[in-house]
Amino acid sequence: MEKKRNIIVGQSGGPTSVINSSLAGVYKTARERGFHRVYGMLHGIQGFLDEQYVDLSTQIHSDMDIELLKRTPSAFLGSCRFKLPEIHENPEIYEKIFQILDKLEIEAFIYIGGNDSMDTIKKLSDYAIVKGHEQKFLGVPKTIDNDLALTDHTPGFGSAAKYIAASTKEVIRDALGLTYNKEMITVIEVMGRNAGWLTGATALARTEECEGPDLIYLPEVAFDIEKFLKKTKELLQTKKTVTIAVSEGIKLADGRYVCELSGGADYVDAFGHKQLQGTAAYLAGYLGAEIGCKARSIEFSTLQRSASHMASRVDVDEAFMVGGAAVKAADEGDTGKMVVIDRKSDDPYMSAAGIYDVHRIANNEKLVPRSWINKEGNYVSEEFINYIEPLIQGDYQPFMVNGLPQHLVLDKK
Amino acid sequence: MEKKRNIIVGQSGGPTSVINSSLAGVYKTARERGFHRVYGMLHGIQGFLDEQYVDLSTQIHSDMDIELLKRTPSAFLGSCRFKLPEIHENPEIYEKIFQILDKLEIEAFIYIGGNDSMDTIKKLSDYAIVKGHEQKFLGVPKTIDNDLALTDHTPGFGSAAKYIAASTKEVIRDALGLTYNKEMITVIEVMGRNAGWLTGATALARTEECEGPDLIYLPEVAFDIEKFLKKTKELLQTKKTVTIAVSEGIKLADGRYVCELSGGADYVDAFGHKQLQGTAAYLAGYLGAEIGCKARSIEFSTLQRSASHMASRVDVDEAFMVGGAAVKAADEGDTGKMVVIDRKSDDPYMSAAGIYDVHRIANNEKLVPRSWINKEGNYVSEEFINYIEPLIQGDYQPFMVNGLPQHLVLDKK
Repeated sequence: MEKKRNIIVGQSGGPTSVINSSLAGVYKTARERGFHRVYGMLHGIQGFLDEQYVDLSTQIHSDMDIELLKRTPSAFLGSCRFKLPEIHENPEIYEKIFQILDKLEIEAFIYIGGNDSMDTIKKLSDYAIVKGHEQKFLGVPKTIDNDLALTDHTPGFGSAAKYIAASTKEVIRDALGLTYNKEMITVIEVMGRNAGWLTGATALARTEECEGPDLIYLPEVAFDIEKFLKKTKELLQTKKTVTIAVSEGIKLADGRYVCELSGGADYVDAFGHKQLQGTAAYLAGYLGAEIGCKARSIEFSTLQRSASHMASRVDVDEAFMVGGAAVKAADEGDTGKMVVIDRKSDDPYMSAAGIYDVHRIANNEKLVPRSWINKEGNYVSEEFINYIEPLIQGDYQPFMVNGLPQHLVLDKK
Repeated sequence: MEKKRNIIVGQSGGPTSVINSSLAGVYKTARERGFHRVYGMLHGIQGFLDEQYVDLSTQIHSDMDIELLKRTPSAFLGSCRFKLPEIHENPEIYEKIFQILDKLEIEAFIYIGGNDSMDTIKKLSDYAIVKGHEQKFLGVPKTIDNDLALTDHTPGFGSAAKYIAASTKEVIRDALGLTYNKEMITVIEVMGRNAGWLTGATALARTEECEGPDLIYLPEVAFDIEKFLKKTKELLQTKKTVTIAVSEGIKLADGRYVCELSGGADYVDAFGHKQLQGTAAYLAGYLGAEIGCKARSIEFSTLQRSASHMASRVDVDEAFMVGGAAVKAADEGDTGKMVVIDRKSDDPYMSAAGIYDVHRIANNEKLVPRSWINKEGNYVSEEFINYIEPLIQGDYQPFMVNGLPQHLVLDKK
């Protein structure tokens, strides 16, 4: 009897608006390429080890469901944060994984995630080669932070950038409407611990009918609070409404996070937890007190990674594309690889799926180049904007049911 | 020479997603009814006193501009928070207002705003009658908080409710994707100092594919932090992911705001400002410490009042309708009145503009009836949901330019 050609896919790490579009791409391409069953592991490799998985044909019943999945934020299958041990440290875990893969007659294993997920792909493909297993292991990149190397950008980044830019425009309109004969400062806090890609995306709010933020501070450049105050005061000489975007991860020259200043270096909340939120709240309080004007803070918070109602069409389509490309690569015999997005042209924007050996992916974060931040360290360059702008284009209209965006959710029956 | 038939319109108070749709309704109806000039006062009555106004025909050039205005959040003309003094306290200010009105040959004065704006309409119409001025004064309601009496609901509320419900769904998906074999609590903070209408709107996230929030706490009911902890622990017995919506204004039985607990009754931030934010952050910290699980907080912040990209069609249309109805009323000789929305039918939903004497509008806030909150004070009733649901229906697709929603903004040349 011929062996079944089955495939399994999982999702890992922080959610994005388009991680399910990659899942949809995997599913649709696997079907088209004649795979027998398409399994989804629940909560990634962690759930897989507990034999938690579903046959995706019990979940996705139509092309309509595939379209709905593309419009559903966060991990449809559930995610995990689970790093596989080194092979020599715990061979039993690898044996277990391959036992389950053999039992399910899996030919290809697709993992959608960030750096840790690519590490999983590397270890599993290494183990398979060493032990003579025939399964193929392919990675699909995902992260709103855009901090993965080798790929021009990551699926998930464009949609987060679009939501951030659109919300920044709306916040600036809100501020302008409120300001008459007195100053108002708005400090917006954007996600990104070490990489400022998302914070820089607020610059896209500078359009023909919006000035955009006045100052943008990324974690790539040491933050100088006195220069910051001076610059803000200067701006208030010529305009009443000042909008400042800061990354949650901006740090002083001595390495302390700005948000740690709220309560000194050992700032903890009332319950003893080290508190790394509140950068914008701290800075708004500081500016308000120093300048004596109204200053407010706004955190975009987790909304920026789950607002699929404001997803970018380019992003959703590319996420779908890299999912499908991973299946194609596995089907053609590749293993231990990550699919990437190669930019073919800026204008008109064109991209295509490429493929890289996961062993080449160093575990370091891709930061915003210093040359894409202005000399003063308080705005991004034209090159930065030209790089991001194509990634936020176009929409996928949500499927609205009873006034709200509808999502595809796991049927646990 | 016949006197010119001119009209002036202003916007006041906190921004909403649809306050400009009311402005569009005023403009379009004034044009259709043959008013000569339509002026817009800049920053409401405060700017008007400084003779800050524009001829709206220099701003709105086409039907396309009217559609764009309907999709633009915050006050196009600029807003103010300015309460007119009593007439006997400062007759000079009234004389000045009527001098400017006479100079501009104004026949009707339309003011879009909340309680304070209706107070302005009352005082100006009283003054006009007493002094024998012929101008008509009409109010158009506006507030996301839905706390105005006499009107079934306020323009601006439906769109804020829609954004809040949609974002709640997305936040819940985010949480579910992240949770495996461990608990996670999300506390969402919604605007509403005294009225819980917007916080209650999170219940709309309970749909066929989403459980919605598990607990909802409105400021109308005293908050008991021990019962809150007990209830949350109970929920965690049967589910891993618990989502709780709280109003920023929830208070303890002794009258203290919950957010004041962070640092005791005199909590101020590092710069000496009394801090009334952080209810959700405080409660998330509390639950995390007491239960020993991951707990995060999300503030919807000002995004909820300026997210015109997620506006409700019903709301935008009603805002337009009440703007137009105010012009019609003034044109037909009414003065000292506020236009309201009368609900004609729940299902199918139908509404029409009504009109009330502004003297009948008491300055008290319309709160959520106790009978629309469950006995335990931790959820809203079916009646509440049936009341809100029609108000979030339908969309106005933003006009997307270069990937972002386009707005109409004041041309200051």
